[in-house]
Parts: sequence; C-alpha cells; structure tokens
Amino acid sequence: MAGPLSGIKVLDLSRFIAGPYCAMMLADMGAEVIKIETSISGDPGRSHPPLIEDESLYHQVYNRNKSGMLLNLREEDDKAIFRELLLKADIMVENFRPGTLDKMGFSWDELHRLNPGLILASITGFGQDGPLKDRPCFDVIAQAMSGLMSITGSADGPPMRYGSFVTDYTSGMYTVIGILAALNVRNSSGEGQHVNVSLIDSALSLLMTAIPEKKLLNRTMGRHGNRDRYGAPSSAYKTAEGEWVFIAAGNSLVFPRLAAAMGMPELLADPRFATMDQRLANFDDLEPIVAHWFAAHGTAEVLEILTRENVPCARVNSVDEMLASEDLEIERRLVTVDHPKLGKVPMQGVTVHLSGTPLEVVRPAPGVGEHNSEILKTWLDWSDEDIVRHQATREATHHAE
Amino acid sequence: MAGPLSGIKVLDLSRFIAGPYCAMMLADMGAEVIKIETSISGDPGRSHPPLIEDESLYHQVYNRNKSGMLLNLREEDDKAIFRELLLKADIMVENFRPGTLDKMGFSWDELHRLNPGLILASITGFGQDGPLKDRPCFDVIAQAMSGLMSITGSADGPPMRYGSFVTDYTSGMYTVIGILAALNVRNSSGEGQHVNVSLIDSALSLLMTAIPEKKLLNRTMGRHGNRDRYGAPSSAYKTAEGEWVFIAAGNSLVFPRLAAAMGMPELLADPRFATMDQRLANFDDLEPIVAHWFAAHGTAEVLEILTRENVPCARVNSVDEMLASEDLEIERRLVTVDHPKLGKVPMQGVTVHLSGTPLEVVRPAPGVGEHNSEILKTWLDWSDEDIVRHQATREATHHAE
Repeated sequence: MAGPLSGIKVLDLSRFIAGPYCAMMLADMGAEVIKIETSISGDPGRSHPPLIEDESLYHQVYNRNKSGMLLNLREEDDKAIFRELLLKADIMVENFRPGTLDKMGFSWDELHRLNPGLILASITGFGQDGPLKDRPCFDVIAQAMSGLMSITGSADGPPMRYGSFVTDYTSGMYTVIGILAALNVRNSSGEGQHVNVSLIDSALSLLMTAIPEKKLLNRTMGRHGNRDRYGAPSSAYKTAEGEWVFIAAGNSLVFPRLAAAMGMPELLADPRFATMDQRLANFDDLEPIVAHWFAAHGTAEVLEILTRENVPCARVNSVDEMLASEDLEIERRLVTVDHPKLGKVPMQGVTVHLSGTPLEVVRPAPGVGEHNSEILKTWLDWSDEDIVRHQATREATHHAE
Repeated sequence: MAGPLSGIKVLDLSRFIAGPYCAMMLADMGAEVIKIETSISGDPGRSHPPLIEDESLYHQVYNRNKSGMLLNLREEDDKAIFRELLLKADIMVENFRPGTLDKMGFSWDELHRLNPGLILASITGFGQDGPLKDRPCFDVIAQAMSGLMSITGSADGPPMRYGSFVTDYTSGMYTVIGILAALNVRNSSGEGQHVNVSLIDSALSLLMTAIPEKKLLNRTMGRHGNRDRYGAPSSAYKTAEGEWVFIAAGNSLVFPRLAAAMGMPELLADPRFATMDQRLANFDDLEPIVAHWFAAHGTAEVLEILTRENVPCARVNSVDEMLASEDLEIERRLVTVDHPKLGKVPMQGVTVHLSGTPLEVVRPAPGVGEHNSEILKTWLDWSDEDIVRHQATREATHHAE
C-alpha cells in the first residue's frame, strides 16, 4: 500500500474496539499491521454479535487491512518470535490492564531498551495509576462515570447511553494522534515514546463547557432531550407524516430565516423571541408554534422550504433511510471488502481524505493466525524450511504434553 | 513549548467547534497556532453561551494555547500579510464552505504553488463535492442524517441527539490524524497535501456494524434505551436511593460474576439465561430480577459488591458527582488557565499523554487580534517602526473611507 504510513510496521495486541480501531486506522493509512492473538479463540471481539456463519461483523469493521498472527505469549518459543518482531516494529498497540505487559516481561523500559525507536501505545480505562487502575472498564462505564450519560436523553427521562461506542472510538482516535505525534518526533530524534490514552479522559474531553460552567457559574449541565442547551429553536419536530426533522435555527443569523420559511415574519418583532436568550427563556411559547408548522406540512415540503431559506435542517434518518438517501451519495462513502467466508462485506470507507497519499481499504479482517508463515518470512526472513522445522518442533512439543 | 509539534506553525482560520478543536489539539502538542479572525466580532463561537462578562466559555475550551490575529482578508493590505504568513506556515486549518477559499484566491493549487510544503486541512459538512456541498451543516445535522440519532434513545421514544457534539469532536480528531499523517509524509517528501474531512463521514464512521448488518442481514439497527444491543444484562438500574448504576454484564465471562454478586447462582442453571443470545431473547424475564436486586440495595453497597465480584459497573454520575468523585482523581485530569478577564478557568486537561514530549496547556484562548504585533514581529521580522508605520497607514486609510 502507498498510504501515508507506508513502510511503518505495527504490532497490534489489542482487543475489543478502542485498540483495534486505532490499529485499523494505522492500517488504512498504509502501515503494515499484524493483529497478534494469543489463543486460538482470539480477540473476544470475534464472538461479538452480529455473527454470520460464526464470523463476527464487529470483528470485520474494526480489523480490516490487518494481517493475523497467533502467538502464545506464555510459551518461550513464541515469546522469542515476538521479541524478534519487536525489533522490526515501529509501533505496538495494546490495551491490557495496567501491569500486564510488565508481568509478560515487556515493560515500557524493557521495550525501549530492546528497540529504542519503538512507539508503545497503551489504552486503559482509567490510566496506568490511581485507585481505579485495576477496574474493568468498557465504553459504557466511561460514559456513565464521566457525566456524558447524564447530559443525554429527555429532561424527564433517565440518563441515556449514546447509541454508539463514542468513548471507544474517540480513545482509538486520540491514540492514533499520540502515535503520529510520536512518529513525528522520532523522525528527528530517532527515539520512541510511550503513548497513554484512557477511556475516562476521552469521555471527559467530550464534555464541552460542562466543567468551567459548574466551577465558575455553579450551573450543572443536564439533559434536554433534542433541544439545544443555549439556543432555540434547535430540536427535532414531527412532520405531517409523523417523521422527524431536525433544525438548527437557534442563533440570531438563522432564526430570521426560519421565521421567513414558516411565513411568520411577525415572530421577529415579538419581544419574547428577539434574542437567543429570550427565545430560550420563552421556549415554551415558541415551541408549539414551530411544532404546529411542522405538523401541518409533509416532510418533503418542510425540507424543501427550509433548504430554500438556508435553514440547517435534516430528516432524522433511520439507518435504512440513510443508506437509501440519494443526496448523501452513500455508495461513494462505503467500501466493500472480500471475505473468504462472508463474501462481499460493505462497511464505512475511510474518513480521512489525503490528496497525495490516499488511504485505502485492501483486505478483510484476518483469521486467527492466518498469516503466521507469511509474517515469519517477510518480517524475520525465515525460509520455508525454517517454518516446516518450527511447525514440526511445535507439534512434537504438543504431542509430548 | 516543547511538545511533539514544537517548531510547527499553524494558521487556523476555522470557526465554531470542529476546526478550532483540531487546531487546539495541534496547539496542545506544542505547535505555534495563530487563530486568524477576519472581523472584529471574530469567530461566531465567541458569542456562544455560556458567557461570563461577555466572554464565552465555549470559545475558551476550544481555543486555548493559540495566539490571536485580526486580518481582514477582503483588504489587499491584510491579504498581503496573510500571504507572507502562508509562506512561513506548515499547516492551515479552515472550515469555510466549499469554494470559499478559491474565491479568496487561495485555492489548494494556489496554496501549494505558494508554499509546496504547506498542509491544508479542510473540514466541511458533506465534502468538497456532491449535491449537498453547499448546504449548511452543524453537528446535529450530521447526527440526524447519518442515522446516529436513530440508534440513540428509548425504544418507545423519539430518536435522540447525543448530549455532546460528537461529530464536531470526531471531525476535529480525524483532521488532526490527517494532518499528522501528511506531516509524516512531508518529513521525507518535502511536499504538503490537502486533507479533507467531513462531518457526515465522521458521523458514519461511528455507526459500528449498522451498515453491513443492514446490507447482509437486512436488520436495521434501532434504539434500545440503555440496553446493549447484543448482550444482557448491560444497562442502567435504579438503586434503593433511586440513583442509576450502569453494569456491563452481558457477556459469558461477566454474567456468572453478576449472578454471584446478586447471590443467585441458580440463574446460571436456568436454560433461559444460559447464553448471551438466550439472555437477550429472554431479557423480559431477566430484567425484573436484576432490577429488583438493585432496588433492594443502596448505591454504595451495590457498587461495593459488584466491584468485589469484578463486574464492570459505575454510578451514572451527574457532572457534579463526576467532579466530586474521589476515585476519578478528577483534579489531575483538569487544567486551569489564567484568563485576563475571567481569572482562573478550569477545563479538561490533555487526553493524549506522551512520555517523552508531553502536551501542555500554557495559555488561555486569545482575544480578537490580541497578538497582531507579536506575530508580525516573530513570524515576519517586522520592526517596531514597521508596525507603527503600518498602523498609521491603516488609520489614514480608515479615516479616508
């Protein structure tokens, strides 16, 4: 591949989402990424639904473009191979619990001694230290603890999880950022670094102004359903067909356009609705007016009128509607990978578009250990004979057990 | 600053969140970032609530570590200065509508001709081309169109916006990734590239397996409130005090621990609850059992028992509870900047931790044009006399108008 990370070698020991997604982004950028799994059952993500013929789609969408290697890191033999690979690698990604790598004999200090140029990226729930470091953490746990859930959902309903694994995704992205920054430093210094990202820090980073708002104004950011916190009207409204359309018309630039679109210029002269603050304060008066207008018009008409008046608006698409949307030209945003068992698997394409060294999706997620021989040959210069001998030794050992 | 991007110069022409957050991450990494505003009112984000003494916290949390310059890019004089700055810059970030830069005379081709090493990063709603390219887009619009809202919220309620601007945040992060990848290429080629990221692609990237699930299994990912889509029990439950605690105990590894925690080993023998699929299929039987146990215990007790049994769990914190949590050691995750008008402004610290070249927060968001003179001196080697002469000319021009 000729992407921006062409020539960069990555060992991906991570499981679930954040780590695999991080390493997948590196692979999409053209890095040579080996997904190393330590047992035949592999990454627990492989058994995560939805499954087709025992193959997980979840595994597919977070591990494309990687090759697969099975190494039992509790066996000296495989550990020796792993050590050889480490000497060739530029980057290693892991999301074991803090201390696990140390116990395996691969502490950051040891890794840095073995290969001074290696960049180690560690993703944890709460960081390498502190009272929570040994606690198991998943995306939803970070969402719950950070306050993210408390600011999502209806005002009169329970706190609500985000429909997507936002803290996993963002942790993966922040880790890529740390890795690429470290790579940039290494280009001049030759030295690798240890990159650390935690799910909880990633979740906190998404809290917008909640922290200074509490500390300086003593105001607690809460949840307001689909309503914007600071401007009105910015929310979802039901059209005549009972479909939802979202508008962002809260600010002083857009509200006059909405008033024009609804054919109600008189709203602009109404002192209750003159400023963003007043519209927010008097939203209980304004909301029914807007809702009534939406309810009196069909979805297509609403979208046409609002678009003509340049009011930011969108149908609240289901996944089916999104896929069928002609405007979105969705097909060019997707890629299809060829999987030996599943056939053609469509999924999201690349999000980062580079004019000179474009990202590419060239192969499906690997099977456990699918590329062991290939990697031993290309990374470690093993011959076919070396591989045959190694397999024979291994089988003999296993028979002896 | 001695961060990983020390020595890198950035022109940030972006507004609102995605672009400013992108450029702020570069600044946190030690790049020298100038926030260029083209009018005295500046970035519209400056008037976005919450405000304290007319200063926006919103502006503060997305623009720290930058310096500020006012340049009217419709005036030839300022345009000439901008062109000089471009020659010194490594990176330029913008989120104008497609075509705007071209009209200003700064198309990608022209920029690349002026400064072949420059990396241009453009953030748009829907990309540089296609039927939607001229449509205004905000975070919520991308959330609505992508299907993200349709998979969030209660099964029997409306589609729900995420409480945070997730597509703005992730667009900013993907853009940083593109920029750093381009920087890595430039280290060997000397050539810059054009990085393009859109809000809609960022939103789609968060859709997990929704696309292959629809296309291969004809199943539409929907919303299920706090329940996990594929495993049970993983949801929020109310304790005796009426507080919410979230558990992630859906998979086969954790469910036995939950059964032990609740003192109900018999659940494991119940054929309705034996596998993840069966628990999901029979969740209406299982849910009340779990809910009843939570309701019979206080929050502290629930958390203690679950933690002892190693069940991933968390109190669903409000922002206040998060800030007060001792376990989270929140103070070490925050930074405080000194603002000339607002005094000490606490906010989230850095999310990416690098062992060798740590990120730093050293100054508050700038005022409009606060550093004009400083930048003319340090970037363009202007003398004090040059600056005085320039200001005199400018005032004369303005008086003549």
